[in-house]
Order: sequence, then C-alpha cells, then structure tokens
Amino acid sequence: MAKGITKRSEDYSAWYNELVKRADLAENSPVRGCMIIKPYGYAIWEKMQAAIDGMFKETGHSNVYFPIFIPKSFLSKEADHVEGFAKECAVVTHYRLKNDENGKGVVVDPDAKLEEELIIRPTSETIIWSTYKKWIQSYRDLPLLLNQWVNVVRWELRTRLFLRTTEFLWQEGHTAHATKQEAIDETIQMLNVYARFAEEYMALPVVKGIKTESERFAGAVDTYSIEALMQDGKALQSGTSHFLGQKFAKAFDVQFANEKGKLEYVWGTSWGTSTRLMGALVMAHSDDNGLVLPPKLAPIHVVIIPIYRKSGELGKIREKVEMIMAQIPKNVVVKFDDRDTQKPGWKFAEYELKGVPVRLAIGPRDLENNTIEMVRRDTREKSVVPMETIGNTIELLLDEIQQNIYNKALKFRETHMGKTDSYEEFKNILDKKGGFILAHWDGTPETEDLIKSETKATIRCIPLDAAHEEGKCIYSGKPSSRRVIFARAY
Amino acid sequence: MAKGITKRSEDYSAWYNELVKRADLAENSPVRGCMIIKPYGYAIWEKMQAAIDGMFKETGHSNVYFPIFIPKSFLSKEADHVEGFAKECAVVTHYRLKNDENGKGVVVDPDAKLEEELIIRPTSETIIWSTYKKWIQSYRDLPLLLNQWVNVVRWELRTRLFLRTTEFLWQEGHTAHATKQEAIDETIQMLNVYARFAEEYMALPVVKGIKTESERFAGAVDTYSIEALMQDGKALQSGTSHFLGQKFAKAFDVQFANEKGKLEYVWGTSWGTSTRLMGALVMAHSDDNGLVLPPKLAPIHVVIIPIYRKSGELGKIREKVEMIMAQIPKNVVVKFDDRDTQKPGWKFAEYELKGVPVRLAIGPRDLENNTIEMVRRDTREKSVVPMETIGNTIELLLDEIQQNIYNKALKFRETHMGKTDSYEEFKNILDKKGGFILAHWDGTPETEDLIKSETKATIRCIPLDAAHEEGKCIYSGKPSSRRVIFARAY
Repeated sequence: MAKGITKRSEDYSAWYNELVKRADLAENSPVRGCMIIKPYGYAIWEKMQAAIDGMFKETGHSNVYFPIFIPKSFLSKEADHVEGFAKECAVVTHYRLKNDENGKGVVVDPDAKLEEELIIRPTSETIIWSTYKKWIQSYRDLPLLLNQWVNVVRWELRTRLFLRTTEFLWQEGHTAHATKQEAIDETIQMLNVYARFAEEYMALPVVKGIKTESERFAGAVDTYSIEALMQDGKALQSGTSHFLGQKFAKAFDVQFANEKGKLEYVWGTSWGTSTRLMGALVMAHSDDNGLVLPPKLAPIHVVIIPIYRKSGELGKIREKVEMIMAQIPKNVVVKFDDRDTQKPGWKFAEYELKGVPVRLAIGPRDLENNTIEMVRRDTREKSVVPMETIGNTIELLLDEIQQNIYNKALKFRETHMGKTDSYEEFKNILDKKGGFILAHWDGTPETEDLIKSETKATIRCIPLDAAHEEGKCIYSGKPSSRRVIFARAY
Repeated sequence: MAKGITKRSEDYSAWYNELVKRADLAENSPVRGCMIIKPYGYAIWEKMQAAIDGMFKETGHSNVYFPIFIPKSFLSKEADHVEGFAKECAVVTHYRLKNDENGKGVVVDPDAKLEEELIIRPTSETIIWSTYKKWIQSYRDLPLLLNQWVNVVRWELRTRLFLRTTEFLWQEGHTAHATKQEAIDETIQMLNVYARFAEEYMALPVVKGIKTESERFAGAVDTYSIEALMQDGKALQSGTSHFLGQKFAKAFDVQFANEKGKLEYVWGTSWGTSTRLMGALVMAHSDDNGLVLPPKLAPIHVVIIPIYRKSGELGKIREKVEMIMAQIPKNVVVKFDDRDTQKPGWKFAEYELKGVPVRLAIGPRDLENNTIEMVRRDTREKSVVPMETIGNTIELLLDEIQQNIYNKALKFRETHMGKTDSYEEFKNILDKKGGFILAHWDGTPETEDLIKSETKATIRCIPLDAAHEEGKCIYSGKPSSRRVIFARAY
C-alpha cells in the first residue's frame, strides 16, 4: 500500500481524493471548485483526447471553435435549456477594473458595465445554433458534423477533482441533419464511439442506454449515455449523446430548403465527454498501491530502474539499457530512471503509485545472467526474463495487461449486476454490495423520485439491449414491460 | 482573382477581411469582438498546434491546465502586471440567473454575488505563480517547464479576425528556474523555437529581437519577440518570450532552498503564441486569388478534379485516381472531388481560394496519353506530367512549394529592409514603401513616443544580431550605438 494513502476498504472516497493528488493528476486551485490538472494527469488526458478525436475524424467530424461567451438572451431561447442551466452559471457583467480611490488595489469600474450580461458557456447549443441559422440554407449545407474541445463552467456547489468541478474540459459535438432518422443514427453512432473508446482504451466495460425523462439533458428529446461501474459499486455516467429533435432549430429558427424547395426545420444532436473520464479511469482500476493505468493511456509504458552499489556497475547497466531500448518498439515509451538522489525502493513505490504498466530492474546479478527482473503493475507479478527477447516480451505483455485490466473490470461488473423483483432485496443489495440492479419500474417520474429519495439510487438508463419482459414495478407494483438499471451514482 | 474579393492593391485591409471569411477560416460571432473559427481555419490551427507542441516536448516541456478564473486580488499582486491588464478584462461578478419577476426572461440573481470578483484570464502568470509557491521548496523541484493551450480574454475595443480579438486561443509557457542565467537561456531558447516554427512551417522569415521598455510585457524584465513582415509593408509581432526575473516570485513569495540550504527567490519566464499566427500566415503569402498555404500547414495537399462529359468517363478516371492515390506517400493528404453538383471551373476557383498547394485535373485526353494536368498554387504554373512518376513528382513539388513560399517572403523582406540616417527619408520610406527600417534611436521612451505619434511607426525590436555602430538618433540627433528596427505594425 502506498505510503500515506487510505485503503479503499477503509474509505473509498478518501482513497480517491488522496490518490488523485499523490499521483500528480490534479489538485484543487485557489479558485473555489476549479482544479489544476498537473503534468502527469494532463498527459493522460492528452492521450484520451488524441484517441477520441481520431474516432471523431474517422466518422467525418471536423473541429471548430465558438466563443466562450453566450449572450444572456440566447440562453433563454429554448425553454427547457434555460431552466437547466441558468441556475449554475458564471455571469460576466463588467469589462474593466480601475484603481480604487481609497488605494485598496483594484475594483470593478462601474462605468464599464455591459449592456447585456454574458454567460460563460455551460454548453454551447445556443451560440452554435444561432450560427447554424447563418450557415444552413439548403439541404446541400447538411449534414454539419462539428465538434469542439473547450472549457466550460457550471457553478457546482459540491465539487470533487475530475468528477464534478466548476470549470472542466470537454468536447462537445453539435450536428445538424436534414432528417429525423439521420439525426437519430448520428446520436447512436456517437454513443457507440464513446462506448468503443471506454472499452478499447480505458479498458472499461460500459452499458449503453437511454435516460429517463428526469435525467435527460435540458433541451434534448432523448438522452443516451454510457454507464460504467466503479469499484465501490457506484455508477459513473461517462458520456452522453443527445437527440435534440428540432428543439434548437425552432428556438433559433434554423430552416433549410429540401430537395423540393420546401422549408423544413433542421434536426440536431449534441454529445459530450469530459475530464470526468479521468475520474472514471482512476476509480475503475486503481488499487491501494496507486494508479493502475491501461497501457493505451499510460504516458510511460516501461520504467527501467538500475540497482547498483558502485558507479562502475551503473556504467555496465547503462550499456545493457541501451541494448534493451534498441529492442523495444518505438511506440512504447520507456523511461530510464538513473537518478542517484533516490533509492530503488523509493522508485519502485513511486512508479507503482503512478501506474506505470511495466517495471524493469537491472542489478549486478542480471548482468551476469543476462536477465532482467520484470514486474507488471496490474497483478504485481514478478518474473525474470532473458535479455534477448525483452522487446517482444514487453510488446506482448502490454497487450496482455490492457486485456487483463478490461477483463477484471468486466468480471467485477458481472458479479455486481443484480436482478430483483423485491424492493426489500433491492435496498439490501444497494446497502450490502452496490452495483447495477436490473428491476422493473412503472415508467413514472414520481416512482423514480420516491425510490431516489428512499434509497439514493437513480435509474442510470434503460439499456438499449433490454429485452421485453412483463413484470411489476418493484415500488408501485404497477405493470412494467422491461427492466431498467438502477444504481447509486457519482 | 477570386470572385468577390477585393484586390490587395485596392484595399489590403478589405482583401484580408474578405479572404478570411470567404476561405472559411473564421467569422465574427454574435458576441462583440469574439470570433468563430470555422472547420477549415481550425484544421490549419490544429496543424500549427501539433508542430509547436512537438517542439515544446522536444525541449522538455509538459502541458498542464490552470483555471480560467483569476481572483481579482491575485491580479493586483504584481504592480506592473495589474497596470497592464486591469483595463481590458472580463469580470465575473455573479454565479446564477433567475426568472425575471416581470416575466422578461432571466436576470442576474442579486443574491448570487461573488464575495470576490473573478477575472477571466488575460494571461496566467498570477494564478500559476500562486501555485508555484506550493510546488517549489527546494532546488530539486526546479526547473519547472510547463505550458498550457487555452483561451484567454482581453477586452479590446478594435478587433479584427485573428489579429486582435476579445477572446483568442493561445499557448502560454511558464517556467521556473534556480538561476538567472538558466531563465535567460530558457527565454532565448523559446524565442528560437518560435522563430524555427515560423520559418520551417509557416515559411515566414522573422527577425528576433528585444523589445523596448514601452513595448515590454507588463511584469517582464525583458521581452523578446519575433517580428514578421506582411505584404503591405506592415510588421506583425508573431510570438513573445519574456524574462520575468524574480518579479512574480517576489509578488507571490516563491522561494527555494538552494544546495547550501539558503533561501532564494525563483527566476521565471513566460512565452506565448496565439491564433494571431493565422493572421500572419494569411497576410504574408496569400494573393488576389485566395490563400497560399505552405504545404506543412495545409489541411489538404493535393486535390484531384475529374473532367468528363459522360459518366462512363468518370468510371475510367476513378480507376486512374485509385492508381495515383496508391503512388502518393501516406503523409500527403489527397482529396478527390468528384461531386457532380459543381463544374470543374468552379472547383478550380474554390481550391485556389482555399490555398490547396497542388491541383491535379484528369480528363479524357489524359486517359489516352497517360498524363495528368498539374497546377501548383504558389506560382499557378501548369504542367502535364506522366502518370507513372506522379507520386515522386508530388513529393518533390510539395517540398519545392514550401521552399519557394519561404524564399518569396524572404526576398520581399530583403527588398523592404530600409536603412536611413535621415528622419525625412524615414517618413518617406514609411509612406511610399513601408517595411522594416533600420535607424538610430537615442534610447529614450520620449523620442520613441514622438516618432510614433508623428509617423505611426514603432520600434519593433532591437535585433539580437544588431552590430555595434556609432550613430545619431534620426529624431533627436543624440548619440546611439546601434540601429533598431522601426515599422508600422498590426
């Protein structure tokens, strides 16, 4: 167990907070609720961005940039949207400071008051659809498949590093289509992109589903999400994709002439993932010794640590390390930590904390025997491998680690996928074990609310692959035709 | 000349504004002074980012993210800094909207007033140095070599797409060092990185120099810049690198224990380039027909346009195009535009406007002769090349275009590098020809100001390679020991 980090079994929440800080991922900033993403954390985020962005481009999307400021009046144009976002936004009212007349530093200059206040974007549907009105006239202008990587601000009261912060980084896709079906297909396509990213890169199995009305994005007709399970049995929504119908097109009067020259309202989608994924990555895989990173997102894949007493030995080790480096494929990032300010034991703990997938150690005995000591981070298994085949060994091992981390998370989810027809058992599962619970629900927001207030569990989604099954709502006993997924959630 | 775009010779400024919009680089947004960067413009910016970011990483820097909000009190801590930035900043005063009691949409909720106002970062020295205080205790914590790619806001009164906008995108590097010399070396190193990027990628020759006191960054001891020359004879500052001395370390009390255990203040640098580079790219190379993009920053390198009457011909052309595609190296981005909604002539003009470096056209005669018509964008020269060697031809041509664009810009600068010892001639050059003018200056801000108000020319920099040369100030006649560069500037 890493020195000074609380065990998961003692206090999962404290473990997470401490690990995020100790592993140099992020820390709180002097500005309430905002985080500082540190170099190691940002390097992981960059890898996430590169993979996701590549998938967006493969599916025909381009990046753009829209202003951070949204005129207050824009926010009000879509009725549901303003209800959802007006209550937690940062408002710019002035554009200048001046020296205080009493010599107390600078104060807001009352003469520099804006005619119309500007909102820091909590999301960009309004400013983007106000522009789509200019860009879209004809069916030839469609579809528009755009995305942006930006910062957004939502004035959250309770914040936690990565999971919920006042400012966070995200991408938001905004597309416009000529037909309803095309927009729905896009919504589902992007949900699938998110699911594929989570599973292939984050090694995180997810459930794809549709949200209930009360969990829907403010301004959407339908919201889809991917839901992942954390090690404490709580769910974490890891990406959402919204079918907007014609709501924003109507709010901003965006019409196009179809092939017959008739005007129709445009159909829209929007979809986003954020730095929240960093929280999911940490909480899904890491252990009491520190981070466990899937190789596809690890900034460093292999660390090599020399073990020596005399400086002559270090010279020989260095020669061997060069031979090893030459064998390892170029896409594998290797770090040789030959600092003499820290002992090997300290380094072992440090790279375990940082989640580096493979650790190699080379000492005098390894030089004699032409071997290397190799430890994999996921299982902490140690082996001694021959120097000649190290390149190939590492390449295979990295793939194996990626797969193993996924398998472990999948097994965890399978053993935490409950199913019940009894409300008593439902509450029992939630308290004893957590996880996803498949149960019948009568389809009303009232029942959903009552279950939430009694158990803190919410409906994560109605799974896309939910089979038709007649049953009775666990709470009201009213009829239901398919099970939904309940869980306590982040 | 592209349809509807003003000629450079008629109105250079109108030409620029129209070209930026017509070539789909950017447009004005509904929020005053803020721009929307469109997909084609953003694709160029992404290429710039990738190249610059790669150079940062090669020189040992890591990326981070600090909050967009700066507490008002932080801005005041460094006296010069607050003077420079307080007058043009966006101020967040409230964190919630509410429904208007008179039913007029939403209004700012007076109960949600922040105790301390937050400034949208105009630059991040203050929030970063407040954090460096926590991160730096010992010489072992140094150097810190960090950078971030973010949006910043400066409330400009007169804005122009890319060149000066209220919100813009940039990178800001912030480093901390144990010694003065190391910080100065870093400042110069990053200036050289910027110069190398401008020359190798943007095909833009630059002068490296040091700024005079009046043009210095608010909070710097010394500001260095790269200065480029635009086709209208005006200069454009394209990147700055600041030696901060111990100013921010003292303002935020950032000290470290040196190897002897004695406390010392940390030395700092900061350096930035922004979406302004997009403006420089357009203004340096483009012509009356549209953009001229250096291949290293072009989103599309080669466009292939089929010329046919019957659809059977298109099938044969398509086969040939596949053979061409197979020959062209993978890193060359090729677009085959076989839309039947537009005529070839329209497409020729369109890709000329967009600055695609190479245009290939294939018609029935080319099929017969096994040739392709090739036009390079920079010189608009047309040639007919044999199909067999097209891959190699294009690879060489792209290099040649990159070099030719640079050479042309260099020649322009050389023919617009004036030198004079007479103030009359100085004014004459400015009015007739523009460009950089090497002249003696007495070293006082007063003279600099007077020259500026009389001629609108400013001292762009004191070139780093300026030779020692005794002379007399062109304005005051007082002694001077080296020439500085004057120009009218963006």
